[in-house]
Amino acid sequence: MKLEYTLKQKSTKNMARLGEFTYNGKVYETPMFMPVGTNATVKTLSPEELKEIGCGIILANTYHLWLRPGEDIVQKAGGLHKFMNYDGPILTDSGGYQVFSLAKPKDITEEGVHFKNYENGDKLFLTPEKSIQIQMALGSDLVMSFDECVKWPAERKYVEESVERTLRWAKRGKDVFNNRDEQMLFGIVQGGEYEDLRKHCAEELVKMDFDGYSVGGTSVGEDKKTMYKMVSYATKYLPENKLRYLMGVGDPIDLIENVMRGIDLFDCVSPTRLARHGHAYTKHGKINLKNSKYKEDFSKIDENCHCYACQNYTKAYIKHLLSCEETFGARLLSIHNISFLVNLMAEIRKNIKTDTLEEFRDQFILDYYGEGYEYK
Amino acid sequence: MKLEYTLKQKSTKNMARLGEFTYNGKVYETPMFMPVGTNATVKTLSPEELKEIGCGIILANTYHLWLRPGEDIVQKAGGLHKFMNYDGPILTDSGGYQVFSLAKPKDITEEGVHFKNYENGDKLFLTPEKSIQIQMALGSDLVMSFDECVKWPAERKYVEESVERTLRWAKRGKDVFNNRDEQMLFGIVQGGEYEDLRKHCAEELVKMDFDGYSVGGTSVGEDKKTMYKMVSYATKYLPENKLRYLMGVGDPIDLIENVMRGIDLFDCVSPTRLARHGHAYTKHGKINLKNSKYKEDFSKIDENCHCYACQNYTKAYIKHLLSCEETFGARLLSIHNISFLVNLMAEIRKNIKTDTLEEFRDQFILDYYGEGYEYK
Repeated sequence: MKLEYTLKQKSTKNMARLGEFTYNGKVYETPMFMPVGTNATVKTLSPEELKEIGCGIILANTYHLWLRPGEDIVQKAGGLHKFMNYDGPILTDSGGYQVFSLAKPKDITEEGVHFKNYENGDKLFLTPEKSIQIQMALGSDLVMSFDECVKWPAERKYVEESVERTLRWAKRGKDVFNNRDEQMLFGIVQGGEYEDLRKHCAEELVKMDFDGYSVGGTSVGEDKKTMYKMVSYATKYLPENKLRYLMGVGDPIDLIENVMRGIDLFDCVSPTRLARHGHAYTKHGKINLKNSKYKEDFSKIDENCHCYACQNYTKAYIKHLLSCEETFGARLLSIHNISFLVNLMAEIRKNIKTDTLEEFRDQFILDYYGEGYEYK
Repeated sequence: MKLEYTLKQKSTKNMARLGEFTYNGKVYETPMFMPVGTNATVKTLSPEELKEIGCGIILANTYHLWLRPGEDIVQKAGGLHKFMNYDGPILTDSGGYQVFSLAKPKDITEEGVHFKNYENGDKLFLTPEKSIQIQMALGSDLVMSFDECVKWPAERKYVEESVERTLRWAKRGKDVFNNRDEQMLFGIVQGGEYEDLRKHCAEELVKMDFDGYSVGGTSVGEDKKTMYKMVSYATKYLPENKLRYLMGVGDPIDLIENVMRGIDLFDCVSPTRLARHGHAYTKHGKINLKNSKYKEDFSKIDENCHCYACQNYTKAYIKHLLSCEETFGARLLSIHNISFLVNLMAEIRKNIKTDTLEEFRDQFILDYYGEGYEYK
């Protein structure tokens, strides 16, 4: 079944929006944070745990699943949902980001990208058509167009050419996708930090009429102010009745700031990656539970959190698990960190309803960073 | 609260026994398999998962918890149950096995054992009194006496002296334990493969009147026939109204054979360790899910199993998780392997009720090993 997005409410003070969609009979609200399940598993967690946390859409990585186990095997298994036992919506990226970040050396041609498998050196070739075909075979609900993710900073000339190629690739992918009833296809707005290029890219994609739109090319080395600009340059040219997804962004303050710039969907590996390194989000900033000061700290990670980890375990126990390299520690922290972001999104939605998101943002910054926070 | 064991039924054909005990208002049946949670966590699993599997007593390792986080911290946390969030019964070993297997070089004196921390080289000294004090501080429900675990084969002369020391150590530990109301103290029968030494050790321990009895010094290199003999030599001199625990034994056939020799409790790291290496128990023997033949095998691990892993996932998916080194793979296999042994114990109890354990054993061997199985 195809997701149908409905815009429910807009802020009068900024671009924040409340919306919802139905999937498998269940209503989901946006803005939403989506955890990443690279290899068809959100690291250390079960699908039941994700649902208990309150997750909706989860992400899977096309590049990784293409190489292992192969989209043919996932298709034979009955698709990603059945393969990994998740009956909520699944979004797949295009593989583009991984091709440009993990796989080197690469050779970008009009036809597609030649590169080497970073694990075994095999020569691989990914095209816009192939990316869409893989995602269709995986049974993804939200399919992404194949794009070039340009690093920051980049010469205007290069970004100009790249945007044109990304637009041609988007068109080629859309032709293969052929407006399937069951799945959604997103166009991806590139254009670096150049407003006219972002505008041009957004407008051309909108002409092609995608089911939703992503903002790409952020979290590639730029500072926060530049990221927020990039997002604003894209969202203001996107139609209000379609979902907007900011790719790879998950820092708590970035969720708030980019919701205020019109974003509905976010994903990031941070909550699970931080967990594996012993870090936990709290209202008062990130803490490192490997720190010896938690050895006899029998309080919960975050007094205001009601996640499974905070309900049942102390910092001292989690610190002990991390010291022993017991994976249950990373599991508890993954539950907590994803819960933190999922709960933050719920707070954000509440404050859109009351149109108090700016005050919420200011208080969040004060609690999380203390006095004197400035965008780095 | 102290466990009170009640013997319910005895086989007329062998030494198998059905029993039960109550803990925290819940009735548990024996014979029982107990999973091992070395560092106050059964690797990869939550306490809720253990309960869903049907586990009763779980084990924790005194040696590991003494060194990390330290029994003082567990005590300050409110004891092991609260620290690790497990409200079922917890058994702790004495640390003896680890001292003799992990820590080298060692120096055994009448007073206790000098050895080095295998992780950082620190000099340590463990005595019978200290072992019991640590276990009491941890809040263990089933406390083990500090004993010497002698490797096989061993000279009779050495075993003789060792048994006498183990008996003196048992007495010293019992004096420290001082018949606490809340906890049980087990004596440990040593004596290698020498029937008269096992008999002597058992009889002397019984005179001291422990709350339960363990059989130690098995799984130390001996063949199965020798192990079974060692167990018989011990159990026949133990009182019927007390629990009997065979330490460190978990091979499925050994569970059946040793129940037939009068054992009530078993523990072993095998189900979780095998899981981490990609192995799964099935009715037809162990399989290695890393094997490429499972890449497109969309059947469950074991068609007759109703565990969470078998209800929801295929061999192909688990094989994929193992290939990607995703810990959810080890978690699913841990659930399955512990379920397998817990379910096997339920089958064993059913067959004690109908006094058909020997037929059950023969059929199990045929299914698990095929024709021509002989004790190795």
